[in-house]
Amino acid sequence: MNISHIEHLGIAVDSLEESIKYYEDILGMKCYSVEEVADQKVKTAFFLVGNTKIELLESTSPDGPIGKFIAKRGQGIHHIAFAVDSANAALKLADERGVTLIDKKSRKGAEGLNIGFLHPKSTLGVLTELCSKQE
Amino acid sequence: MNISHIEHLGIAVDSLEESIKYYEDILGMKCYSVEEVADQKVKTAFFLVGNTKIELLESTSPDGPIGKFIAKRGQGIHHIAFAVDSANAALKLADERGVTLIDKKSRKGAEGLNIGFLHPKSTLGVLTELCSKQE
Repeated sequence: MNISHIEHLGIAVDSLEESIKYYEDILGMKCYSVEEVADQKVKTAFFLVGNTKIELLESTSPDGPIGKFIAKRGQGIHHIAFAVDSANAALKLADERGVTLIDKKSRKGAEGLNIGFLHPKSTLGVLTELCSKQE
Repeated sequence: MNISHIEHLGIAVDSLEESIKYYEDILGMKCYSVEEVADQKVKTAFFLVGNTKIELLESTSPDGPIGKFIAKRGQGIHHIAFAVDSANAALKLADERGVTLIDKKSRKGAEGLNIGFLHPKSTLGVLTELCSKQE
């Protein structure tokens, strides 16, 4: 599958404002971008740590995926995203290897990346995203 | 706090054997080490992805931290570990900034690192480890 690195970690939070303060003032990181992803019903804030990003996710609606996650489990790590050459090719390979896909083909995510998710029932409980700059 | 990168991600799994197969055969990573950490009641398996490690954690006892985590929440991401210059200095700084500590001072963890944990009630639900090669 040729995973080069962990592209980002998605972390579900109640409040971006409060969370940005924690990551900046306590951990000493720097938020470099805040972006709304309307079709995912989230506002996101990004931090760079080494060559991995931390993507904080605040729900904009209780019926969005992050709203439901927090209602069930509280704040915490929501997903891991691996960087690959082509999200579509990696999704196809995962499918051939018996993994249940959430996305059959890649779609556009935050920061313009091509992204697709694997179902956590096939990935030992870890919601897993594959993403690539190009297709 | 001077965090250089995400040193590793700890992932709680039911079975190291089954999980190593998933990470190797499906995701194409390579397990480079299996180690038991007796005082944490876990067996661990390590993979390198970019400059971050994935540390799979199988409980060796139902009353260990990973056994309890899995009983409550099932398999999944358990903690994030940030690499710092000195785990002790970073713990002290976190304490001064009002974070509740699990470890007041660093102790030895897997791979001989000096490690200490912050309490998830102070870290927006993310069990957070600070680790360093030296003190």
